[in-house]
Amino acid sequence: MKHTMPIPFHKVKMTDGFWRERIELNSRVTISAVYDRFAETGRFAALGCNWTEEMGESLRPHYFWDSDVAKWIEGCANILRTEDRPDLIALCDAAIADIVKNQGEDGYFNVYFTVVDPEHRFIDRDKHELYCAGHLMEAAVAYYEATGKRALLDAMCRFADYIEKRFKIDRDAGFITPGHQEIELALFRLYDCTGESRYLELAKFFINERGKNDKPLSPTSTLEYNQSHLPVREQREAVGHAVRAAYLYAAMAELAERTEDGELLTACDALFDNISKKKMYITGGVGSSASGEAYTVDYDLPNILSYSESCAGMGLIFFAAKMMRMKGDSKYAEVIERVLYNCFLCCTSIDGESFFYTNPLEVIPYLSYKDKVSEYYKIKYPKPSRSRVFKTSCCPSNVVRFVPEIPELIYGDDGDTVFIHQYISSSVELCRGDSKVTLTVSTDYPRSGRVEIRADGGELDIKLRIPSWHKGYSGEVDRGYAPIHLRDGVPFAIELDMSPRIIRANPRVLFDAHKCAVMRGPVVYCSEAVDNGELLRNIRLDITSPITEEQTPSGYAAPALSAVGYRRAVSESAPLYFEGAEDEIKIPLRLIPYHAFSNRGECEMQVWMNYKG
Amino acid sequence: MKHTMPIPFHKVKMTDGFWRERIELNSRVTISAVYDRFAETGRFAALGCNWTEEMGESLRPHYFWDSDVAKWIEGCANILRTEDRPDLIALCDAAIADIVKNQGEDGYFNVYFTVVDPEHRFIDRDKHELYCAGHLMEAAVAYYEATGKRALLDAMCRFADYIEKRFKIDRDAGFITPGHQEIELALFRLYDCTGESRYLELAKFFINERGKNDKPLSPTSTLEYNQSHLPVREQREAVGHAVRAAYLYAAMAELAERTEDGELLTACDALFDNISKKKMYITGGVGSSASGEAYTVDYDLPNILSYSESCAGMGLIFFAAKMMRMKGDSKYAEVIERVLYNCFLCCTSIDGESFFYTNPLEVIPYLSYKDKVSEYYKIKYPKPSRSRVFKTSCCPSNVVRFVPEIPELIYGDDGDTVFIHQYISSSVELCRGDSKVTLTVSTDYPRSGRVEIRADGGELDIKLRIPSWHKGYSGEVDRGYAPIHLRDGVPFAIELDMSPRIIRANPRVLFDAHKCAVMRGPVVYCSEAVDNGELLRNIRLDITSPITEEQTPSGYAAPALSAVGYRRAVSESAPLYFEGAEDEIKIPLRLIPYHAFSNRGECEMQVWMNYKG
Repeated sequence: MKHTMPIPFHKVKMTDGFWRERIELNSRVTISAVYDRFAETGRFAALGCNWTEEMGESLRPHYFWDSDVAKWIEGCANILRTEDRPDLIALCDAAIADIVKNQGEDGYFNVYFTVVDPEHRFIDRDKHELYCAGHLMEAAVAYYEATGKRALLDAMCRFADYIEKRFKIDRDAGFITPGHQEIELALFRLYDCTGESRYLELAKFFINERGKNDKPLSPTSTLEYNQSHLPVREQREAVGHAVRAAYLYAAMAELAERTEDGELLTACDALFDNISKKKMYITGGVGSSASGEAYTVDYDLPNILSYSESCAGMGLIFFAAKMMRMKGDSKYAEVIERVLYNCFLCCTSIDGESFFYTNPLEVIPYLSYKDKVSEYYKIKYPKPSRSRVFKTSCCPSNVVRFVPEIPELIYGDDGDTVFIHQYISSSVELCRGDSKVTLTVSTDYPRSGRVEIRADGGELDIKLRIPSWHKGYSGEVDRGYAPIHLRDGVPFAIELDMSPRIIRANPRVLFDAHKCAVMRGPVVYCSEAVDNGELLRNIRLDITSPITEEQTPSGYAAPALSAVGYRRAVSESAPLYFEGAEDEIKIPLRLIPYHAFSNRGECEMQVWMNYKG
Repeated sequence: MKHTMPIPFHKVKMTDGFWRERIELNSRVTISAVYDRFAETGRFAALGCNWTEEMGESLRPHYFWDSDVAKWIEGCANILRTEDRPDLIALCDAAIADIVKNQGEDGYFNVYFTVVDPEHRFIDRDKHELYCAGHLMEAAVAYYEATGKRALLDAMCRFADYIEKRFKIDRDAGFITPGHQEIELALFRLYDCTGESRYLELAKFFINERGKNDKPLSPTSTLEYNQSHLPVREQREAVGHAVRAAYLYAAMAELAERTEDGELLTACDALFDNISKKKMYITGGVGSSASGEAYTVDYDLPNILSYSESCAGMGLIFFAAKMMRMKGDSKYAEVIERVLYNCFLCCTSIDGESFFYTNPLEVIPYLSYKDKVSEYYKIKYPKPSRSRVFKTSCCPSNVVRFVPEIPELIYGDDGDTVFIHQYISSSVELCRGDSKVTLTVSTDYPRSGRVEIRADGGELDIKLRIPSWHKGYSGEVDRGYAPIHLRDGVPFAIELDMSPRIIRANPRVLFDAHKCAVMRGPVVYCSEAVDNGELLRNIRLDITSPITEEQTPSGYAAPALSAVGYRRAVSESAPLYFEGAEDEIKIPLRLIPYHAFSNRGECEMQVWMNYKG
């Protein structure tokens, strides 16, 4: 079939609605908050390459700091595509000047391997050198495209040339493919921007060589950890570190698309299905285990011990978005929507200043603090509240670069038909023959379900995604999309069914057995102790009583819900164990969108609830 | 009140019944199985103190190996009290000869600090030196009392004298009180055996100095870890490593009894209540966290991640048994019974040859194997099956020494009245005035609830523990005991109510919320997948249907039970998440005594079950 190319985010006009609010929050608050935290922790100063042992441990550049700065620059570049922000340009130019100044004669740039460990350049596969390089290349392309400034782009082309020489031509580096994938995606962008086919070839090289002769990163990790266990075309099951996996799978999908590689696409199909059918939380979170931040076995989706890293969620969107170009199937857009409104949105606080690294499905705060006497076998429970910065601060910088790109997920155009993948208020201008047609989507979805779509300036064929949860659409639906012919100026309206739904999990998901979750549209809900009192596990949701909508609090994607619950009546002064009947007390049970939890202090939270009825 | 002293185990005649079977299994199978494993792993050869670097890592004596051997010798001694076993005497004598031969001139003995690290004697509080010494002293006393052979006793008196000199007189050791408690209990026994009051004083010294000026064991543990955070009389809450805690609390209780120390008894009372009312599994298991093998906060009793070390269970029995001497309250005997039939019994396989180090309340085997890609933050789930030996093999050796002593838990005698704490078939001969009265308890409890008690040769006042779960006893009950006057030769019979009971937990035990457990008498039941199919969490116990008794399988303390369950009808080929009603299929649900799980292969198990009704 024809590929449907996304309409670039800067060509999508965000008119109003929830995502416009979030994009504004990102450029008004988050980009600066992340800058401040990175500056405080020495990440920008490190670019000066002035660090010496005397400055001490805390200022010593870490081997992934370059990527934090790079993703922040990319975030600025994305904002600059649609906004006039001289403040951001000044900060970026300063950082870029340091990078250019401290780049080696040979093109190499990496702060850590310049000032901390210069002897081990390209020796240790576990040290994120090519990952940092990739993010710097993406930043370079984005900044050039936003500002026309070439300094970083030229520098990163030199770096890419040097990497090509060492890894592909001379093959004298200490490893074959990156320890942490990312440069593959970056090289595609560098090729698209420069037209230099050697960058495309280098991307292919890193993808195609993977899993052939790689060595494990370390004695305590396996080849599966970073998907080096099999040649990519033979991979069928999502394994290992979930962010690395997502970046690889996205690159594989991109290569499959560019080269019409059916064998590679078969692998991508299997990987996507394995993730979305067996390894994905209801929130779209993936990588359920803290051990290796990794995928484990099918249906292993623990709630209290969920990992579900924010970057893995974003990575799954990247992968799904690449797949979506090749396939006219709504399953990709559905996964994207699931991640967007839940796992991804949860990462950032309502105020835009703090972040979850992991996005738990259940929080019992005491668990994080109970083991006090020994470090021996201490369990890493997910953090119950967001932080302003992390030692590994990949998630905040990924958020700032990704949020401005969200409009790119809305539309796909195969030249004849425009796919509307996401219901997000926006408009785009399309060329159809000689005429320009403006396509407008007007909605405050998912706060309500009403969506109006119109074409102005000409008629238009669209394919409108009908969510699998929407009941009552009576027209034709082809692999999840309804083909609709829009006449010039005649609006088409759809009212999506936003009734709260009671969701159960497959019986192999043992941690969800005899529990239910509540969704409304794409939004997963949770119960939080600040609304319902502590000891949430003692409450059962009455699934026979109606669940009604409250107001939508500021910053929430969707309204809070009022339900009926039953709480165990037994007193906390009861014996530890007792015989006898249990009573329950009927209580009002308030549910809020999952993404909004932990914005009112640290307390218990659960997505999967005991239920009655 | 008057103290009730236990009737020593070798004076209790075990006539028949479940515990006689277990005691026979211990002396017929377990003692030899543990010997063989210890011999295979070099623990006995190590006593020769011949190890050199060239013999390699695997044979290098570990700093707790002495205690393994000592507890095994103590087990032999206990068996020798009632059985003629020249095979065990020969093995013990050989080991003892090596110990005596390799004891230092100064009285010191420790294999590790003789052949591996001779420079650091009494320097490192974390290296179990005084713990090993204590177990050797207990073995020495037991072996002397069983055989009249003094060699080990004399050697251990010399060692105790040397310890007194270094720790109490010269105070030139590298720490003040033991890193792992045990020697306190041993010194009481050494004093009782030898009459040398300096051993009693040394026991007092180690108890009384604890928590005054101690240093943490290591930079990664706290003073709470080994109960050194407060002087013992100020301790109120069970904290830290649960075995160390139990051994300390037992020693504190013993000292309180011997010295009528009310302040110390107040601390013991608070500690016992804190454990039994807020920190004990329904199985009697304690120390819920693998992190530090430790107590955590009140009501923190996770099931899948339960720790519940076998030695901690035995330690709780030791503590409760000491308390029971001073207090005419059945709560101690009830806790002992709970541990005995559940946590403790679970430790050993039905065949007597393998052991649980930890005794989980729920087993989902895949969890132990799912994290394969990295050692980073790997969670230590409880092992789903028993092992024949461990690197730290404290539990098997504790089992072999403790099982023969179980008859000592049955009776208490304050001179006027005999307490019957446990319903175990047995008889004892008592002196009452000039006459000898034989007290006989005949029962196959807990397989059935009928118990017959008679005195022959005279009349007798007894106090019979009426279990708190027994319904319908109409006579006088004083703190859990019914005072009964037995006339010579006239049997008294009681029929204990062995109906299965549905048990719930306090609402603060979040992991048990909306779940129930089944008990019958003192026995906790579980559901195992070998009977009921995998994915147990999908099953609900129908608590409105009768639960009936099956046969008692060989080696089980109690019959299996037949109940009715409901299993979710949704197919495993269902989507990962789905909307729609759930059906359930009525199924027979078989429950077995918890202690017997994992004797038919490795599979899912749960004590706390979802229920319906």
